[in-house]
Amino acid sequence: MRYEESVIEGRNAVIEAFRSGKTIDKVFILDGCKDGPVSTVVREAKKRDTIINYVKRERLDEMSSTGKHQGVIAYAAAYEYATVDDILEAAKEKGEDPFVIILDNIEDPHNLGAIIRTANLAGAHGVIIPKRRAVGLTSTVARTSAGAINYTPVAKVTNIANTIEELKKSGMWFVCADMDGTAMYDVNLTGSIGLVIGNEGEGVSRLVKEKCDYIASIPMKGDIDSLNASVATGVLAYEIVRQRLNAK
Amino acid sequence: MRYEESVIEGRNAVIEAFRSGKTIDKVFILDGCKDGPVSTVVREAKKRDTIINYVKRERLDEMSSTGKHQGVIAYAAAYEYATVDDILEAAKEKGEDPFVIILDNIEDPHNLGAIIRTANLAGAHGVIIPKRRAVGLTSTVARTSAGAINYTPVAKVTNIANTIEELKKSGMWFVCADMDGTAMYDVNLTGSIGLVIGNEGEGVSRLVKEKCDYIASIPMKGDIDSLNASVATGVLAYEIVRQRLNAK
Repeated sequence: MRYEESVIEGRNAVIEAFRSGKTIDKVFILDGCKDGPVSTVVREAKKRDTIINYVKRERLDEMSSTGKHQGVIAYAAAYEYATVDDILEAAKEKGEDPFVIILDNIEDPHNLGAIIRTANLAGAHGVIIPKRRAVGLTSTVARTSAGAINYTPVAKVTNIANTIEELKKSGMWFVCADMDGTAMYDVNLTGSIGLVIGNEGEGVSRLVKEKCDYIASIPMKGDIDSLNASVATGVLAYEIVRQRLNAK
Repeated sequence: MRYEESVIEGRNAVIEAFRSGKTIDKVFILDGCKDGPVSTVVREAKKRDTIINYVKRERLDEMSSTGKHQGVIAYAAAYEYATVDDILEAAKEKGEDPFVIILDNIEDPHNLGAIIRTANLAGAHGVIIPKRRAVGLTSTVARTSAGAINYTPVAKVTNIANTIEELKKSGMWFVCADMDGTAMYDVNLTGSIGLVIGNEGEGVSRLVKEKCDYIASIPMKGDIDSLNASVATGVLAYEIVRQRLNAK
């Protein structure tokens, strides 16, 4: 169920996009601009919990490809988001314990695309990303996912920590990736599991980490600090695959 | 052999370059930028009497070839390629069986950078790439390697198949990644090993594949064909790490 990837420019176009039910990831509005149509954009955005960024004219001019943004530019999702329930339902349909990958603020679209691709092949039932401070389903993400975006549901949530809390009630447990953790081979990664991967620079945030049941680390022999986020996700996801295969 | 590229972009890449003892000629820093990593760059530069230029964003954008300078660009002495012997020597010095990653025509600089990063952390002694039809050590590679390029030797050879043939004489054996192979868990990946990874689109070429002793596959559950090349390298490299740890 795909969307046209799109940057939408101009007041009426953005208002129409909202009203047509299109999923808008972010809206950029000229700072200080408060006239009627712009207020309508703000109201529509707030109604849908869409992130609003107030920016300077130079920034909008840079972003604009038409040169006619009228103070408003919106980024629509290239693909439709799923819900967390869709993901659990997918696991149920396959008769499998849920296996979900949760991304705590991945910023690089190449990483998100590669992770969706990995999720698909490792048999994860879906990917959960946060609304704020993270990349959404852009066309770069779609391309780097090598088509996986058409099969693997991606849900967007307001608060990762709360979502983990909710999912725990359904019997899932959560492991986050961090250097201080137990070696991944020594953590039991079978059963209904959520794998939590942190931001490229900062890792998993403290609040989210506190919600996790276990912290697992990838053994590191080298001179630098950390693996690329999508590689780390691949290594951990496949440790889950290995343990699930062994557990059969 | 010197490489033509000598621009390092991005905070971590520049910090790692300093720390590895590389000679930095000049550093360009975004004027007014004073956060943690940037202060570290300034400190490292002063320690070594490196010239610091504070410049505007426009100037950095102009200088940047990756578009991802993160406010820091350094001009360094060029990256040098190692030789295959350097790589074997590095293993010998550590008293370890050689573990080498061989890339049969990786084209995407993000993949090469991420693979060098993985090689460093998985304890591989070096990476071998071909001279033709493959990406070399560009500034994008340096940046995405997150500094690993300063520690992990990368050798460039004329003919991958011949190099494998030569290395076999020294007692190494070779496993290549391919979908038709034996599940990686069932292949003995201990000892002196070369892991061969193919091109993003075409996989390992026939000639190179014929030189390999084993073909190992990553279990795939999903709807699409293959993992991202750097993710696949990470998953296989860490299966080697796991087996090596178990074999001790």
